[in-house]
Amino acid sequence: VGSPKPTDQPAIAGEDDVVEFIRGMLGSGIEAFGLRDDAALVQVPGGGPLVVSVDSVVEGVHVDLSLSTPADVGWKALMGAVSDLAAMGAAPIGALIALCVPGGSGNGEVALGVMEGVAEASVAAPCPVVGGDISGAGQLVVAVTVLGSVAPGGSAVTRAGAAPGDAILVTGPCGGSAAGLRHLRAHTALGQAYRRPVARLREGDTARRFGAKAMIDVSDGLALDLHRLADASGVGFVLGEVPVADGATLEDALGGGEDYELLFTVSAADQEKLAAGFETEGLRPPRRIGVTVADATERTFRGDALPRLGWQHTLG
Amino acid sequence: VGSPKPTDQPAIAGEDDVVEFIRGMLGSGIEAFGLRDDAALVQVPGGGPLVVSVDSVVEGVHVDLSLSTPADVGWKALMGAVSDLAAMGAAPIGALIALCVPGGSGNGEVALGVMEGVAEASVAAPCPVVGGDISGAGQLVVAVTVLGSVAPGGSAVTRAGAAPGDAILVTGPCGGSAAGLRHLRAHTALGQAYRRPVARLREGDTARRFGAKAMIDVSDGLALDLHRLADASGVGFVLGEVPVADGATLEDALGGGEDYELLFTVSAADQEKLAAGFETEGLRPPRRIGVTVADATERTFRGDALPRLGWQHTLG
Repeated sequence: VGSPKPTDQPAIAGEDDVVEFIRGMLGSGIEAFGLRDDAALVQVPGGGPLVVSVDSVVEGVHVDLSLSTPADVGWKALMGAVSDLAAMGAAPIGALIALCVPGGSGNGEVALGVMEGVAEASVAAPCPVVGGDISGAGQLVVAVTVLGSVAPGGSAVTRAGAAPGDAILVTGPCGGSAAGLRHLRAHTALGQAYRRPVARLREGDTARRFGAKAMIDVSDGLALDLHRLADASGVGFVLGEVPVADGATLEDALGGGEDYELLFTVSAADQEKLAAGFETEGLRPPRRIGVTVADATERTFRGDALPRLGWQHTLG
Repeated sequence: VGSPKPTDQPAIAGEDDVVEFIRGMLGSGIEAFGLRDDAALVQVPGGGPLVVSVDSVVEGVHVDLSLSTPADVGWKALMGAVSDLAAMGAAPIGALIALCVPGGSGNGEVALGVMEGVAEASVAAPCPVVGGDISGAGQLVVAVTVLGSVAPGGSAVTRAGAAPGDAILVTGPCGGSAAGLRHLRAHTALGQAYRRPVARLREGDTARRFGAKAMIDVSDGLALDLHRLADASGVGFVLGEVPVADGATLEDALGGGEDYELLFTVSAADQEKLAAGFETEGLRPPRRIGVTVADATERTFRGDALPRLGWQHTLG
């Protein structure tokens, strides 16, 4: 998680561009690659649709081992992938872990530390680990694939379902992870949001059951993730406010990422029903932060154009 | 793929040991981690069992970009994972790709090259790509998760089903990949077995349907993989011969790995039926290379104890 930066860059410079190219290369057989949605829907012969997603955590890119323990890295890798299930309104079935650890003395211990964190997050989610692979590498990489399902009769919530006039809601304050990272760097104690984020599985399921039309998790930054939802749905948005986590700045909240709060839309008619659903479930009420609009080029925050602030890998 | 080496090392020195520790840490919730089987079986609510596996290819560990193109790496990563499905007698449903590529100029091209090879192997298998994630990293890592299923009424073939007196068979000659790597290093033209291996999906399915009791793919070396099958099944073996690929040595065949031929057992009673099944399917007849025995400590090749020759990562 670096500083927020605008990501309007030339072609094939950023993750979204490469993903677009790859999607074209793989043709129509592919239902989702990376950013088309948080997770893909796969039809299992003789069964219902499976919700699947893969997410990687790379040392020096997503995590810094001087600020996070190997167990923190394992926790975050599993929760980050489970958060993609939450953002589809799906329930976890299991996870597969591809672990790459540097060779040399002591790295058996790093591998065990990472898997300890994976095991802890696996219990907390809950999402059992059903398979894995260990390999040597020059740096620590943890790639987690998660499998999930939506209750019979329900449908997964994609990014593409928003229509003009929907309310835009978020399950909680954002920016806590970015602020936590700053605190860790300053050697203060407030790093939990960064070190041990929690996927909003119950919030995702509840949002799905009570009318969410489009949903995404805030993994790369609220601004960038909202742009992606709007891209997929073909709508614009007018954002009025953003809940900012304690200790975080507005810039953290807009562009910090890794908060794993869920961002979703609901029709004006379903807003009250949805609020009641969250209350019944004993969940924190989601905050209404704006509204979608028909003009897909209109994308404002407090009246000004909102840049695509957030975290994207540069692959130039 | 390094030179074959014996892997009887102290605790937590090799991949198998770390995997054993992790398996204990994750408790009984885990059905398979790494070497317990080629793939894990996961129950999908409202559906049949899903066969899942994950496999990584790491630059400098499994592949050398001076000998393989990025597209070769992508091909191999996908086929290696699909081979785990073949070894369960399962049919592919789809694959998820976690791609980590070094930052900096030109690496967008590496990412596209890798995915081109993934796409080619995806068509050849066939196994559609259903999801993916791209990240920066210090070195190229491709982690592939595959999902598969076994035809209704059938059961996946694990490593653990062998009983004493079973015939041991292999679907083809081994050592071709190791020999191919040597040829590549010597700049001759014989590198296809190393650069573009093919998973034995039809052979795996046919073996399953005609009585295979235990099965594994030769990914790390015939000797090591046979030991693993024997470990899982609680049997010993008497190996009489090993088919050696053209241009390969006996040591290549025993310890080279990455051949992706399938190694399986069948009861004496089912041998003829199985041979007929392979013939009906138009497949190369599997070669009988030995027999399983009740004494799990008896593990010989041509009368001498067979070392666990093969490829294991050292994580000490």
